[in-house]
Amino acid sequence: MTPEEQLKILTAGTVKVLSEKELLEKLRLGRPLRIKLGLDPTSPDIHLGHTVVFEKMRQFQQLGHQIVIIIGDFTATIGDPSGRSATRPPLSREDVLVNAETYTTQLFKLLDKEKTEIVYNGDWFRKMTFEDVLRLNARVTMQQMLQREDFRNRIDKGQEVRLHEIQYPIVQGWDSVEVRADVELGGTDQLFNLLVGRDLQKEEGQPQQVVITMPLLEGLDGVKKMSKSYGNYVGVSDAPQDMFGKLMSVSDELMLRYYLLLLGETLDPAIHPMEAKKSLAEKITRRFHGDEAGAGARADWDTRFSKKDLISADLPELAIADLPAELNVLTLTAHGFKAAFGLEKSNGELRKQFITTGSVQLNGEKLTEPSATVAPQPGDVLKLSKKHAVRFI
Amino acid sequence: MTPEEQLKILTAGTVKVLSEKELLEKLRLGRPLRIKLGLDPTSPDIHLGHTVVFEKMRQFQQLGHQIVIIIGDFTATIGDPSGRSATRPPLSREDVLVNAETYTTQLFKLLDKEKTEIVYNGDWFRKMTFEDVLRLNARVTMQQMLQREDFRNRIDKGQEVRLHEIQYPIVQGWDSVEVRADVELGGTDQLFNLLVGRDLQKEEGQPQQVVITMPLLEGLDGVKKMSKSYGNYVGVSDAPQDMFGKLMSVSDELMLRYYLLLLGETLDPAIHPMEAKKSLAEKITRRFHGDEAGAGARADWDTRFSKKDLISADLPELAIADLPAELNVLTLTAHGFKAAFGLEKSNGELRKQFITTGSVQLNGEKLTEPSATVAPQPGDVLKLSKKHAVRFI
Repeated sequence: MTPEEQLKILTAGTVKVLSEKELLEKLRLGRPLRIKLGLDPTSPDIHLGHTVVFEKMRQFQQLGHQIVIIIGDFTATIGDPSGRSATRPPLSREDVLVNAETYTTQLFKLLDKEKTEIVYNGDWFRKMTFEDVLRLNARVTMQQMLQREDFRNRIDKGQEVRLHEIQYPIVQGWDSVEVRADVELGGTDQLFNLLVGRDLQKEEGQPQQVVITMPLLEGLDGVKKMSKSYGNYVGVSDAPQDMFGKLMSVSDELMLRYYLLLLGETLDPAIHPMEAKKSLAEKITRRFHGDEAGAGARADWDTRFSKKDLISADLPELAIADLPAELNVLTLTAHGFKAAFGLEKSNGELRKQFITTGSVQLNGEKLTEPSATVAPQPGDVLKLSKKHAVRFI
Repeated sequence: MTPEEQLKILTAGTVKVLSEKELLEKLRLGRPLRIKLGLDPTSPDIHLGHTVVFEKMRQFQQLGHQIVIIIGDFTATIGDPSGRSATRPPLSREDVLVNAETYTTQLFKLLDKEKTEIVYNGDWFRKMTFEDVLRLNARVTMQQMLQREDFRNRIDKGQEVRLHEIQYPIVQGWDSVEVRADVELGGTDQLFNLLVGRDLQKEEGQPQQVVITMPLLEGLDGVKKMSKSYGNYVGVSDAPQDMFGKLMSVSDELMLRYYLLLLGETLDPAIHPMEAKKSLAEKITRRFHGDEAGAGARADWDTRFSKKDLISADLPELAIADLPAELNVLTLTAHGFKAAFGLEKSNGELRKQFITTGSVQLNGEKLTEPSATVAPQPGDVLKLSKKHAVRFI
């Protein structure tokens, strides 16, 4: 493939490429480029939002470039030495390895493991002395650090920025020097750190890496970024049926984004949206659970919704014990959408689009009165919409 | 001596004591306090300005407190790792030891060596890993560093502050933790760094050191701070006659400051100023050159000026080769004051107070015409004032 053709594929779906001109020049070198991705092994929870960058790595790898994964074990084992952040406890070496394994296991569902280089940055940072740190720090200015939006905002708001925090972008930047990265990928929130890598490479007399940022993926609601804390996520280890069902619930517009960012594909407009959505859900489920589970999830979904055999279908389950107190049709419907599918719908939407239209049914009986009291029993099936139903346990 | 009496002596001549209340509480502990002084062994040139702090240390030692000298060899051997500062080249271990020796040799003319503890901060900093540095940095905020006037001014002016520079106050502060300092002394320009020591001790759960700043000593001109670059200094290794002569040239007002800051004494107003000045010059010369040389310098001065026997006296020498071109009486007089005594006098002052009054004489001949050409020969004696004369070579 020509460098120009590669450029077109590689820049699709990106937010920023600094710069396309430099990337094209590197592609013209005619050698495999070194594509760096830093992984922070602090949390084992990965969702599809994390895999947007993985998908772009896959595209690079398929074009013959060398993927270099850097496991950020150095800072993970230190945590937050100020002790002020409960969300960054120091991790044991074992925790780090387990988390890294979780990441790479998912990663290798997209990438060819044999052609991927994995390194741990503790290998070079744990050898550094205070003197080495001073030399490293001498290459960066306070002014550069104050340009970072996060730091500037906190200083403006009178919130403290502890000095160890400004070491972290330097650590990430130095990784680029160590692996001689040609390209570094990250989410848009990583732009500052990626640029520090360029600066440090320049100081070292290395060619500067091209920086590519990928968008933060919208969650199932299509509005907020996908995040566990927003409940609008698809975990890569969600059960096949859950993964498939969640993906079937996205809007047609969001489906186009998911095609581009998760599969690197542009959707053929000739395909019917419902068919396209099933195809998206199946491909992603196959990716993380294998072909059999992906095909099975689709067949199961067809049984449940297309064939309307809700009673025998393998539905998401909701515990009656977790239901809100003072339950009426409106609160039950809201809870069903939220708890099983991560969808937050307004009361108006629930009334107009689902309840009064007769879409909401308990064991096949329409629940059209929002304020009516309702008391589901174990085994009952609540249908919410054409695409959503749950079973109570 | 009671704690209250000690407090009076120890606070005399200081600029800031943070706080007197805390110092009094520490003095009441009834044990020797640990008094820290950090020495930066980057330059071997010491002048009386540096000894203001030494004199205060002497007072502490005489009251029975424990002096702890910290040789800052850690950063001295690193220099400026950004390579941007020509004035901070990395020093070899040997250079550092030689410079440290120069400092301590002078210091022990005031302090009792046997009762002084000397440590090298490389002993703890060279052992630190990157992880240790992160833990140390976690105790300090960016906001604290931005309070430092020097950093803030440079940022406001758009001049860069390299990140290794903000490690240096932390290094100095950590020294206080390592030696468990009760009191740290420094010049007024050190206030920020001394306070970092207090902060780090607090973070470590140690009692916080009292911080005492001493004034920057005015040079011989009585206006600017004493500095080699202003030419208004008395080097501690100046020859006894030069040291004595330079000190005799200070104003009566400045003499009072020198008594307080260099000798820790308050001048008895009953003593005639000329006698008081000779006594000051002799005491300081004795301190750095021994009793015999001090007494000799005074006797020599009396011979030269009091007995007016200029020709045979041991005068400062000026090389004819160094004289300005197009020499007239005015430029010759200006050069004599500046080159031999570090005194910058205005042309008006030279004309009115020295030349037209007949004070300026070449081999006893009055030179009263400022613009008259003059060509001194080797061996000629130029008298400038009652207190200043030079011999040409």
